Order: sequence, then C-alpha cells, then structure tokens
Amino acid sequence: MSKDYIQMWESLGLNLEAHDGLLEVLGKQYREVFLKQQNRPEGMGYFDFVMREVHGLRVKELLDAQAHGRKVIGTFCVYAPEELILAANAICVGLCAGAEIAPELADEYLPRNTCALIRSFFGFKLAGVCPYTNACDLVVGETTCDGKKKAYEIFAELKDLYVMEIPQRKGAADRVLWRAEIVRFKERVEQLTGVEITADRLRAAITTVNDRRRALQRLTRLRYQYPTVISGRDALLINQIAFYDDPARFTGSVNALCDELEQRGKDGVEVASGNPVKLMIAGCPMAVPNWKLPVVVEEAGAVIVAEESCVGERNTRDLVVEEGGTVADLVDRLTDRYMSINCAVFTPNEGRLDHIVETARAAKVDGIIHYALQFCGPYTIEARNVQKRLDAEGLPLLRLETDYGAEDTGQLKTRVEAFVEQLS
Amino acid sequence: MSKDYIQMWESLGLNLEAHDGLLEVLGKQYREVFLKQQNRPEGMGYFDFVMREVHGLRVKELLDAQAHGRKVIGTFCVYAPEELILAANAICVGLCAGAEIAPELADEYLPRNTCALIRSFFGFKLAGVCPYTNACDLVVGETTCDGKKKAYEIFAELKDLYVMEIPQRKGAADRVLWRAEIVRFKERVEQLTGVEITADRLRAAITTVNDRRRALQRLTRLRYQYPTVISGRDALLINQIAFYDDPARFTGSVNALCDELEQRGKDGVEVASGNPVKLMIAGCPMAVPNWKLPVVVEEAGAVIVAEESCVGERNTRDLVVEEGGTVADLVDRLTDRYMSINCAVFTPNEGRLDHIVETARAAKVDGIIHYALQFCGPYTIEARNVQKRLDAEGLPLLRLETDYGAEDTGQLKTRVEAFVEQLS
Repeated sequence: MSKDYIQMWESLGLNLEAHDGLLEVLGKQYREVFLKQQNRPEGMGYFDFVMREVHGLRVKELLDAQAHGRKVIGTFCVYAPEELILAANAICVGLCAGAEIAPELADEYLPRNTCALIRSFFGFKLAGVCPYTNACDLVVGETTCDGKKKAYEIFAELKDLYVMEIPQRKGAADRVLWRAEIVRFKERVEQLTGVEITADRLRAAITTVNDRRRALQRLTRLRYQYPTVISGRDALLINQIAFYDDPARFTGSVNALCDELEQRGKDGVEVASGNPVKLMIAGCPMAVPNWKLPVVVEEAGAVIVAEESCVGERNTRDLVVEEGGTVADLVDRLTDRYMSINCAVFTPNEGRLDHIVETARAAKVDGIIHYALQFCGPYTIEARNVQKRLDAEGLPLLRLETDYGAEDTGQLKTRVEAFVEQLS
Repeated sequence: MSKDYIQMWESLGLNLEAHDGLLEVLGKQYREVFLKQQNRPEGMGYFDFVMREVHGLRVKELLDAQAHGRKVIGTFCVYAPEELILAANAICVGLCAGAEIAPELADEYLPRNTCALIRSFFGFKLAGVCPYTNACDLVVGETTCDGKKKAYEIFAELKDLYVMEIPQRKGAADRVLWRAEIVRFKERVEQLTGVEITADRLRAAITTVNDRRRALQRLTRLRYQYPTVISGRDALLINQIAFYDDPARFTGSVNALCDELEQRGKDGVEVASGNPVKLMIAGCPMAVPNWKLPVVVEEAGAVIVAEESCVGERNTRDLVVEEGGTVADLVDRLTDRYMSINCAVFTPNEGRLDHIVETARAAKVDGIIHYALQFCGPYTIEARNVQKRLDAEGLPLLRLETDYGAEDTGQLKTRVEAFVEQLS
C-alpha cells in the first residue's frame, strides 16, 4: 500500500507504527491467499486494487466527501438500513472486525469469553489501526446478540454510537417495533446530515443498493451454474468489499466480472479442475481479513460455491420492493425486506434452516460446513438445529467452532480434509 | 425427605436412582449451609419444612390440583407475568436451574460455552430429577439472553414450551411490543386452562402477587434496618422459595417471620455479632440450590444484607399498580410493572446501575460483590459499567465470575476474604 497517506492517517489519529505493522502483515497475507491463485479471473484486478487501497484511496474518498459536507456512517451488521444512509447523501461503510488486533487492549474492556468479532472491533479502535472507525461521523450498532448489544454500551465511550433494536421474533408486533426503529434511525440520519430523506431520494437509494444486490445475486447464480469459474475465497472477498466500496462503482465491477465468468463458464476455464468437492459455508460472517477457513477448505481441494452468511447471501438474497409513492410506503418496503434476514438471533429460526437447504440444493453442494465463532451463542447453539435439519435432508454437515487465531489451523485442516475426503 | 413419594416420582417419569442421589446430596448440603447456623430465627422453620418437602408435598399439591382440573405452568424468569397464570386458576412454579446436574447429558444438546444456569435446566430434565419440569403442563421461556433464547428452541424437543419476547430497550416501541406479548401470553394461558381471565380474576391475582412482593419488601427493609437479624443465606433461601411455594401461604409465613425479626431487632438478637462487614450481592440470579457464594461470603465473616438479583429485589421491588376497571387497564399496569425490571439484557441499562447504588445506600453496605455466571454475556459485560459507576460513587466492588462447580471455591474464598478484610 502506498505511503502517500501518512499525513491522512496521522490526521485520523492512527497509531502509525502499529498501522504499518498491520498493513505489512495484511499485504503478505493477501499475496499468499489471493494473488498466488492460479487462473484467476481478470476481473479480480479491480478488487485487488480496492484491497491494495483499502486504507488509502477509499479512506481519502471518505475524507474528501466529508470536506464537501457529506457524512460517513459506519455499521457492523446487515440490519443497518444502508438505503437511509445513502438517501441522506451520506456514505455507509462496514467497520473493521475480521482480525485479532491488540487482544490485550480489548481485555481491558471486555470479558475473555467474548467472540473474536467483537474483540476485534475493540482491538482495531484501541490499537488505532482502523481508519474507517476513526473517520466515521457516527457508528451504528444494533441489538443482535448479547455480546454486541452490551459491548456497544462500552464502545460508546470511544466513539459516537447509535443503537438500533432488532426484534427477536418475526411476528406482527416485531414488525411494528422494527418499523418504528427504522423511522427512529431515519430521523437520526436526517439530524446528522441535515438532509431530509424524501421519497425520491429514498427510492433512488433503494435502487442503488438493490443494483448491488442484483449484481451479487448474479455472481451467486454463476457460481451455482459454473462452480469452478471463480474460487470461493475470491467470491468471499467480493462480498467483503461490498461493505465499504462505493456502491455504483462496485456494482459495475461485479457485473463486469460476471460477464467474464459467464464466458469462462461457456469456455470451460476453471480455477480448479477435476470435479472438486463443492462446499457451502453457513454461519457467522467473515469480515476482512478473516480468510482462515476458506483457505483451509480450498487448500484441501474443495471449492466453496455458496455462503449462507451476512458476508454472503444473507446480505444479498432479498431485494427491497421498488414500489411506493411516499416515504411511509418505502419505509414499509424497507421494514419487510430487513425482517426477512434470517440471522440466528431470531427465534424460532426455521427460515434460516430453509434457506440453507434451498441454497445447498440450488448450488448442488456435496456438503455444508457450519462455521461458528467461539462464544457466539446464537450460532453455536443453532448449529444443533442445523445438524438435525440437514441430517433429515440427507445433506452432509461439518460443524466447526473457531476464532481469529492461528492456533487451531492444524486441527481445522485435519477435520476439513477428512470431510472433503469423505465426500470425494 | 420422605420416601412416601416414590410412586408419585415414578409417575412423573423421574429417574429414581439419580433422584435419590440428588436428594441425599441436597439434604446434606442443606444441613451444612442452613441448619448448622447459630441463632436462626424460629420463623425459618416453615422454610426448612418447605425445602424438606420441595420434591415431596409441594409436588403432591401440584398433582392434586391437576387432578382437580387446574394447570401448572413452569417459568424460568421474573419476566413471566405470574398474575396471568394465577388469574386463570393455574399454578406458577419456578423451575430447577441451580445445580450442576448431568453435564455430560447437557453436552449433547448445548455448546460447552453455555452458562451454568442453562446447562442446569437441561441437566435436570435430561437426568430425570426435576419433578417440577415433568409435572408442568406448559413451560414458559423468554428471549432474555442469547443462551436461553436459543436453548429453548432445543428444550422444546423435551417439553411443551411457550416463548415470550422481552424487548431490549425501554422506549415507547418496546412498551408496545411487550404489551402485545402480554396479551399473546394471556391468550395462550386462557387456551391452556379454559379459563377466561376477567378483570376481577386478574385484579385478585395482582393483589396476591403484590402481597407476596410486599412481604418480601418488608423483609428487605428489616435487613436494611437490622442487618444481623437474619443471615443473607436465609434471606436468599426465602427469595428462592418464593418461586414455587403457594403465594398466599408463603406471604403469611414471610410476614410471621418479619414480626419475629422486628422483635429480634428491637431486642438485639443477632446471627452475627461484632458489627460485621455488610455486603450486597448484585448480578445473576441464584436458583436453588446455588448457595455457593453466600456461604463463602458469610463464612468469611461478612453478612449479606441485600440482593440486586432476580432472586431478590429485581423480583420484589416493583408492585403492579392496583387500579383499573378493565382487563385492558390491568394489562397496561402489568406492562408498566414488568418493563421496570432492570435485567442486564436491556440497553442502555442505567436503571440497573441506579438501583444498585440506591440499594447500597439504603442498606448502608460496606461493599458490593458483582456476581456473574461464566459465559453470561449480559452480566459479565455489564460488570464494567457497574464498576465505573460504583467507582464514581466511592462504593467498593468485587467482581466475580463463577459457575456451579466446586473447583473454584478456594479461589473465591481467597478473593472474598481479601475483600472483607479490606472493608473491615
């Protein structure tokens, strides 16, 4: 990554030494995980560029936009309605939470028995290595899990924070609560930006975000059709980048890549030959640079063809219905769309089990890996219901529980290799 | 405990051998923890009797009531509105969750990183040693924490289960949700019992439960006034028994005990002399037979004078306003009363911090022990905010995290003794 940004990073209050160290590690990791792959689609060049500039050019874009009066809002969850942020001419960015950073600093704020994702966003902030968190005018939290809900109370000491309440069931009363939360958030965004969210603005924002979802859906379908035209880790990377790149530019780049993948599919150009085992990953989100499991899986000779995850289909499957003349109508459409996300924090959560089965069938996978972060109550407990359902459907499942450390990589490899072997 | 109940236990599907073993251990533990205390109030005789008959006479009462057409509903949380249960002529009992039972069986259903309380109610059920769970016509769960919310989905395989949704904030939209949940529960109880919950019935039930709360509030005030007229463990026991004894009989017994305690206060009759260190316990509930920490504290020479806990003031502090001519009015009163409970699952949760400080001041404690179960996200994470607030108030705090095992008792003793020494 370029060194031209030192002054910018300094102005954001980053710890330059720690930040340099992080970039060096990330760069090395990126080369190993992504650039050494054989026969990658050319269209990945754009995403490589974005990643190379993830702490550089994109951050500069945010600061330039702020200099022109726009606001930047950071989020941690696919439940934060990005459409409202865009409709107020603000920029939405997903915040850093995919690496173990300064665990000793996080320990001063959180119990040890907190999941790696939550410890990570504290670590990034406390170590001063996340330009996004520091650049944000506001951070949006949500009451998904106990860990995040209670950790945000503490994170608010470090950063301006707004918390949305996610319901826990999907009944009529929950829809009422969630709609009220969307309206409350809309008002907060309007207050922050000074921009009134009109029906026209909101409709345009809905189209922008839907277009991104449509492009990612196209990528999803192409992987179902041609499972080896792109590696699972590259597809995951694209889904990760979706959270902080400019939406329109990103959508264009995904569609350009999809054109290429379609041609590769027709031409039989593959990243892995010989009919490899096709796997789907279901469970907790994998934020940048959490590429541990995909690498283990694909180095074991399998190819990942689907992600039932917030960084994956949980973020892209459902569109907002693009109908409605008034803000109230559009808020209704947003409410419905977000209520359909099947996070494990809901009870009961049959919808998620259905979605896993449907995706597994659509992608014709040989097996599913359920990926849960250690100490993540919702996903670790729900894993049993996933197991029951997949057993009933005759779909093979491997349940894994891990964190962001490297200590268990050997153990993961052994288990994943055995699973792939069993499915071969 | 009498052996006359063998047939009854058999009919409930208990594992007689395991159950015998449990009763033997519990009996021994009870003698050590309670009966060996010096100078106990005579009024504790009633509660000793109830405990001796906890798996006997009380269970027989439930079965006799069922034989006469009444229903028995089990609960796990102070958010379950007992008034609706009583108003439908049903019996409400708190379910067994205070001991480590058959952890190897619980492991088949739950991740290891689940708190002891949740593992306990699975263990009790799976080992076949809880006559209450087996006797219930319905069990009421609630979406307090991630662990319980998701574990109930699995527990529903073992027992008829109904889940109430607890909101996570205390705004206007949350009150709407919670009121809808109370109405939904009312309908479920009416359906189960075949009894229509009229305003008269509900008003009477509200008075019954309020009377119990008033009696326990009286006990609370007496402990503030005369901190050594009763031990903390006896007061905890009374609060534990509140969850499954007949409410009216229990209320009478608490009031009789309070008459005695008042006299003891005036006469200077004490369970601990020499101005012992006065402590308050704040945090997770302690269900029967979880007496580990109180014993450690009182054996260290301190006396516990208050419990900011669901088995304590969180269950007794607030009355339902006894006004309202219609069921709808009374449902409003119930809604307001239950919304005022300050469980750590709420965010933000300043009300709980206020309550801890108010109680500490009212009881004139020398220090506070924050008690959290390991893997309980809400309480372990909130402990830091409790610390900050108590530091600001100049109130000494000891933060403990433990489980139901005996392994850490030595370590707890060392820490508690040091804390008591520091406050002496």
